[in-house]
Amino acid sequence: MPYSHILAQLNQLLGDKGCKHDKPTCTEHSKDESWHAPQLPLAVCYPQSAEDVSQIVRICNDANIAMTAFGAGTSVEGQSIPSANSIVIDLSRMNKLLNLWPEDLNCRVEAGMTRLTLNHLLKPHGLFFPIDPGADATLGGMCATRASGTNAVRYGTMKQNVLGLTVVTAQGEIIHTGTRAKKSSAGYDLTSLFIGSEGTLGIITDVTLSLQGIPETHAAATLNFSQLRHCVQLVIQILQYGIPIARIELLDEAGITAVNRYKQLELPVKPTLFLEFAGTKLQIEEQIRTVESIADGIEPCNMQWAENEEDINRLWQARHHALYAAKAMLPNCDVWTTDVCVPVSQLESCILDTQTYIHSSGLLAPIVGHVGDGNFHVLILIPQNDSSARGCARELNDRIIERALQSGGTCTGEHGIGLGKKRWLMEEAGASLNLMKALKNTMDPKHLLNPGKLFDL
Amino acid sequence: MPYSHILAQLNQLLGDKGCKHDKPTCTEHSKDESWHAPQLPLAVCYPQSAEDVSQIVRICNDANIAMTAFGAGTSVEGQSIPSANSIVIDLSRMNKLLNLWPEDLNCRVEAGMTRLTLNHLLKPHGLFFPIDPGADATLGGMCATRASGTNAVRYGTMKQNVLGLTVVTAQGEIIHTGTRAKKSSAGYDLTSLFIGSEGTLGIITDVTLSLQGIPETHAAATLNFSQLRHCVQLVIQILQYGIPIARIELLDEAGITAVNRYKQLELPVKPTLFLEFAGTKLQIEEQIRTVESIADGIEPCNMQWAENEEDINRLWQARHHALYAAKAMLPNCDVWTTDVCVPVSQLESCILDTQTYIHSSGLLAPIVGHVGDGNFHVLILIPQNDSSARGCARELNDRIIERALQSGGTCTGEHGIGLGKKRWLMEEAGASLNLMKALKNTMDPKHLLNPGKLFDL
Repeated sequence: MPYSHILAQLNQLLGDKGCKHDKPTCTEHSKDESWHAPQLPLAVCYPQSAEDVSQIVRICNDANIAMTAFGAGTSVEGQSIPSANSIVIDLSRMNKLLNLWPEDLNCRVEAGMTRLTLNHLLKPHGLFFPIDPGADATLGGMCATRASGTNAVRYGTMKQNVLGLTVVTAQGEIIHTGTRAKKSSAGYDLTSLFIGSEGTLGIITDVTLSLQGIPETHAAATLNFSQLRHCVQLVIQILQYGIPIARIELLDEAGITAVNRYKQLELPVKPTLFLEFAGTKLQIEEQIRTVESIADGIEPCNMQWAENEEDINRLWQARHHALYAAKAMLPNCDVWTTDVCVPVSQLESCILDTQTYIHSSGLLAPIVGHVGDGNFHVLILIPQNDSSARGCARELNDRIIERALQSGGTCTGEHGIGLGKKRWLMEEAGASLNLMKALKNTMDPKHLLNPGKLFDL
Repeated sequence: MPYSHILAQLNQLLGDKGCKHDKPTCTEHSKDESWHAPQLPLAVCYPQSAEDVSQIVRICNDANIAMTAFGAGTSVEGQSIPSANSIVIDLSRMNKLLNLWPEDLNCRVEAGMTRLTLNHLLKPHGLFFPIDPGADATLGGMCATRASGTNAVRYGTMKQNVLGLTVVTAQGEIIHTGTRAKKSSAGYDLTSLFIGSEGTLGIITDVTLSLQGIPETHAAATLNFSQLRHCVQLVIQILQYGIPIARIELLDEAGITAVNRYKQLELPVKPTLFLEFAGTKLQIEEQIRTVESIADGIEPCNMQWAENEEDINRLWQARHHALYAAKAMLPNCDVWTTDVCVPVSQLESCILDTQTYIHSSGLLAPIVGHVGDGNFHVLILIPQNDSSARGCARELNDRIIERALQSGGTCTGEHGIGLGKKRWLMEEAGASLNLMKALKNTMDPKHLLNPGKLFDL
C-alpha cells in the first residue's frame, strides 16, 4: 500500500490538524535531546483519546507502518527518534487531568500531560508528584523510560509511583492494568512490564499515579570535602541511618567549575554534595543534626545553608542546570551523557576510576550524580563534527559501563537503552535478553512499535 | 513415557534423599494453608542448586510432567497445591544466605530461606528485611505471591523490595534479572514479571533483596473509637500527613472479641486500631503527638500504650494470631479468608457494607485489616463438612469482591489468585487477561509450570 493511501486514512480519521506532514512538524519530531542522528517520519499524528490511538495503530498495523510515541521529546538515548518511513504519534494533545482523588493520594492523567503542569494543578490541594527527571517530560514518557531523578533517593522511581496504565497494544486493543488500590496480588504485573519498555510493547495513553503531600518545610545546603571518597562515605552513612533525605547530589571539581561559571556562583572547587531536607521543622532539625555529626566524623567541613526559598531555588537551579553549564564550557559542543548506576559501596571506586578514564581520554567531562541511588552521569563534551573526539567519547562511555557492570551495577540508572546502549543491554541482561525478545515478539509480532530501540530482533 | 521412568531419572539426578515418593512426604506436599482440596503429587524433589532445578525442569519438560514449586507451604489460595500426576519441587534445602552487603543494604538469599531465618542472620548487622506476611514463609514463595503484610504501609510489598532474581525457565534455562544497583532503566522489568506470577512463569531459585536498618526504637498502642468510620478517618489523615507509621491495623468488634478470648486480653469491644511507631525517640515522639492530636479531633479517645518490649510483643502477637483466634471461636471449623484491597477513601463504606453482608449471611466472620493499604481480611468461619455454610461463605466472598471492584479496588491485596480467585481475576483484569495468557503461552508453551493457577488456558 503506498504511503499516500495511509496518510489519507489518517487524515480522514484525525482531520488536517490531527495529521501533519509538513517539513517543520516532521523535523521537530525527528529527534530527541540525545546525540543520536535525527530521522524524519512520514507524518505526525495528534490523537485526542485512547480511541484515536487505537484507530491509528490499527491503520498502521494493517499497512505494516512503524509507529513511535512522542511526548515532550526529552529522552536522551534516542527513544523518541522515529525509524524510516514511520508515523509519529504525538500525545501532547492528550494532556488532561482525568481524575484527582486527594484522600487516596492518587490521580489519573492523560499520557501527554507534563510533570510541571501536573504539579501546578496539584499544588492547591497540598499535593505533588515527586519524580523529577529535570526536564519537563510527559508522564507517559516518564513511564516509558522508567524515569527518576533527584528525588528518587526518597520517593523511588516511576516504577514505585505508578498504580496503573491504559495502554493501546500493537493490535490496537485498549487495555487497563492495575487498579487504584495501593497494592495488589492479582496476576502478572503488566504495569511494570510497560514501565521502561520505551514504547516497544504498547502505547501508554493514561497513567494512574501515587501522589505525596507537600512537606511542611524545606532546607538545603552544600557541603564540600577535600576528597570525593568522603562525599560517598557520608552518603552511605546517611542511607544506613535511614535518614529520609529529600535529595543528595554530587558534583565533582569539574562540575563545580562549570556551574560556578554558568550561574555566577563562587562555590569552592572541591567535590561537593548538594543536600535537601524536607518534612516538619522538627524532623528537619533532627536530620540536619545527624548529618552534621556524621559529616564531622569524616572530615571537619562546613555546610553552607541556603537561608531562604530564593537561595534554595538558586542552589537547585545550579544543580539542575549542570548539563547546560557543562555545555557552556565548550562553544558549539554536543554532550554525551553516561548513566551508570552501581551499588553505593562501589560508588567511590567507580567514580575515581572514571575520573582516571576521563583524564586519559583528554576530554572535558564533568561528573554529576544522584549519589543516594549510586547513579552518576559523566557529561562528555564533544566539539561538533569532531569525529575523533566522538570516538574517544564512545570509548570512555564503554569503559565506564564495563566498570559499572563489573561492580554489580547497570549501564543505565534512568535514561534507558534506546538506540545508544543496545550493545550494553546484551552484556548486562545476558540470557534474559532472549526472554525480553520473546515478550516483544509475542506482544508486537510485526515489530511496528518503536522498532530498533532496546535490542535488534 | 511411564511415570516410573521419570522417577528413576529424578532419583538418579538427586539420589534417594533428593527425590521422595513415600506417602507422608507426598501428603505433606499435597496442600497449603487454604481451604482448597489437597492433591497428591507423584514425587517430591529437593534440589540443592539452580543447576539441580534446571535438570529437574528439563527432565519433566521432556516427559510433559507438570511441576509445582514449594517453599514453606504457607500460601492461602492453593498456590502450592500440585496438579494431578505432577512433581513438586521443594526448595527448602536451598536456604543459604549467599551474600550480604551491609553497606549497600542488600543481600542475596536462596529461594528456600524463610524470612525469620534471614532476619535472625541480619540482626547482628543491625539490619532487617521488612516484609512480614505473618507466616514464616520462604523468600522465594513471598516473591511468587507478591506478599506484603503489616509492614507494607511503611516499606511497601515484595514488589518494592526485590532487586533481582535467579529464575529457571520452563525450558530449564537459568536466567538472572536485575542488578544490585538501586534502580535501573535497562530493558523490560523481568523481575516484576516473575514477582506475583505464582510459579507459573519460572521457578525462582535465589533473590536479591533490599534491606533496612533496624530502627532505634519502637512504640505501640491500641486506640478504639465508637465507630469504625472514625478509625478509617484517622488512617486517611495519617497518610495525608505523610507520617511514616510502621504499622496500622484494624480489628472490628468481632475481631476484638476473638483475640480477647484467645489471648486472655481485656480490650474494649469496639473498632480498634493497633499502631506501631518506629524510628529515633524524637521522631516517634513527634509522630505520636501528631497522631494523638488528629485522633482527638475526630473523637475524644484514649490511646493505650504498650509500656515495654514484652507488652509490645503481646499486642502484636494478638494481632498476628487473629486467624487462630478466629478459628478458636468455632470448634472444628475451616477459615475462608477474603483479601480485597480498595482505595483508602473507599475503605469505610466497603467495610460497613461488608459487615452488613456478614450479618445477613448468618456466618461468624471477624474483620482484620491492613488499613493503611486499604487491605482487609474477612475471616469466614465454616463448620467442617457443612456444605451449606461453605456455599454461604462463597457467596459472601463474592459480594465482598464485587463491592471492592466497584470501588476501584482489587480482589486480592496480598494473597494472590491461586485456585480460588480465577473467576475474579477475569473480572478485574478484563481485556488485559488475554495479554497475561499470551505471556504464559510464550514462556511456558506446554503449560507445565504450576498449571491451573491464576487462569485456565
